Amino acid sequence: MAVQQTGGEAQQDAEVRELAERLAGGDLRAVARAISLVEDGTPLGWGLLDRLYPRTGRAQRLGVTGPPGSGKSTLVNALAQTLRERGERVAILAVDPTSPFSGGAILGDRVRMTAATRDPDLFVRSMASRGNLGGVSSATYEASEILEAAGYDRILIETVGVGQSELEIVELADTVALVLVPESGDAVQVMKAGIMEVADLFVINKYDREGGDRLVRELQLAMELSDWRRGGAWAPPICTTVATRGEGVREALDAAERHFAHLRGEHQRLTQVRAQKMQRRLRMLLNRVLLRHAWRDARIEDQLEAALARIAAREISPYRWVQEVLQSWRRQGEEQDG
Amino acid sequence: MAVQQTGGEAQQDAEVRELAERLAGGDLRAVARAISLVEDGTPLGWGLLDRLYPRTGRAQRLGVTGPPGSGKSTLVNALAQTLRERGERVAILAVDPTSPFSGGAILGDRVRMTAATRDPDLFVRSMASRGNLGGVSSATYEASEILEAAGYDRILIETVGVGQSELEIVELADTVALVLVPESGDAVQVMKAGIMEVADLFVINKYDREGGDRLVRELQLAMELSDWRRGGAWAPPICTTVATRGEGVREALDAAERHFAHLRGEHQRLTQVRAQKMQRRLRMLLNRVLLRHAWRDARIEDQLEAALARIAAREISPYRWVQEVLQSWRRQGEEQDG
Repeated sequence: MAVQQTGGEAQQDAEVRELAERLAGGDLRAVARAISLVEDGTPLGWGLLDRLYPRTGRAQRLGVTGPPGSGKSTLVNALAQTLRERGERVAILAVDPTSPFSGGAILGDRVRMTAATRDPDLFVRSMASRGNLGGVSSATYEASEILEAAGYDRILIETVGVGQSELEIVELADTVALVLVPESGDAVQVMKAGIMEVADLFVINKYDREGGDRLVRELQLAMELSDWRRGGAWAPPICTTVATRGEGVREALDAAERHFAHLRGEHQRLTQVRAQKMQRRLRMLLNRVLLRHAWRDARIEDQLEAALARIAAREISPYRWVQEVLQSWRRQGEEQDG
Repeated sequence: MAVQQTGGEAQQDAEVRELAERLAGGDLRAVARAISLVEDGTPLGWGLLDRLYPRTGRAQRLGVTGPPGSGKSTLVNALAQTLRERGERVAILAVDPTSPFSGGAILGDRVRMTAATRDPDLFVRSMASRGNLGGVSSATYEASEILEAAGYDRILIETVGVGQSELEIVELADTVALVLVPESGDAVQVMKAGIMEVADLFVINKYDREGGDRLVRELQLAMELSDWRRGGAWAPPICTTVATRGEGVREALDAAERHFAHLRGEHQRLTQVRAQKMQRRLRMLLNRVLLRHAWRDARIEDQLEAALARIAAREISPYRWVQEVLQSWRRQGEEQDG
């Protein structure tokens, strides 16, 4: 976009190019580095995402969400193993937006798992909110694009709970599996919590425990009563698993496959749905970038500091101050670009 | 700020001046019109807020929040009547951020109440999220500034629940009364919900019902156990009321008065706390204005529409598109200002 490239930009382009090549060659350390760059919101990461974008769009993103203690990690590991047995290259992104610290624990389990298998075609990463500029969800989506560009066919995205984060699991994934356990409470509670809507399939994990059958029946009834139909008439199947023993995992995966096939098959529904999600993502990305640039370029933090005393003394109103900052930023832009 | 005023600006200034004068003269229709202007996010409303700002800062904002069904509206009405008996000019702002529709019902009750009293010194308004640009909470704060400028000494702000909205009740009010009822559940649940922190005082309403004493004891115990102390060592008192019969309302009001006196008395704590809240408010206001101007000036909605197909076809990445929009807006600013 710049007419003349600065030395810094040229160097960055070279770095982006090199990293992109290593990624395409399956270099795991390059993948890890690239994800760290997007997590940190660096210009290098941004440049890399731009370069890799043409190589995205083919992979399936399977989201696995549910309450704490529902055995999501175990299920995701089991799904990943099953996919590996089918010869697919698999990546796991584990997100815990509520606590960057508990993410460490998840990662601990996962590191052991990965170390045990030493499988280069199973990539595992815990996503934590390092920077304060983006959200962890946005970085997770960007990480999934890097993984796609690095040739992973299937990306499993694990999140705790639903909602809360700026981009929800529905925005991150093509297919969402909602994991419940017999102890989750009855289906009415699940419906009240407003989390049924996100499910493309239900997985009742720890199905060997008391109350599993009851929960299945209640979910079926609840779906019938609410005349459960989403666009395209997809009725979310209810799968039952005991992930620790691998029971039902294959069937759950097949259900996810059927949903993805349904999205692909039906009048290009996948294309439509992805375009809607992209539109929401563009708005969010753009707003984040606009605000970041404005705050930095107009030194708003400094201006804010100076304004507070004047505003408290009623020398200037908050409303006039905001207008002045807006204008000062636009003049700033003029000087830089002109 | 503009060196030369346009005709539209001069006319707007005249309108702002006239409305401000009518406000100062206690014209209720001018107050109602002004609040509608800020609710709708109009430039006229913004200009008015700027003009009125020097006349703000003296009134006390008392927030009343709590779960649905806790009798907040009845309590607020009773508090307002008590304040009126003490000769104060009182305004009530009722906010329901979760549902703009149920706000209508609240207003219905209130309109009847106001009509019955025909008291020009009791102003009542239900705040609903009309526009999509600001949040209802921000408009509520702005409405409270208009009411201050119109000479209301006390502004009662009623919200349903806690959290959720972009500016919480804590940001809107100097003193927050958290209303609970014996049926609210035990104190442990209240603590878990993270709403105890907002309370400067607790009001157990419907205290004549079973379980009132138990809830009071549990709250006391919970505060002791959690070593409850906020900055300034204010321990939230627990008041008990039966608002429908006016019981305990005077005492609850006195507790709110003590809290406000505490804020005023202690090393200018009120000034500090308000400055902190103003800082957060400035950030929010500024971000809202920056984004609104950017979207409008750079016709981002149109650009977005055009970009989606190109992005889906991988002709351009979301990342490059965002950069291009950023630059196009800044060039736009240059043309307008230069």
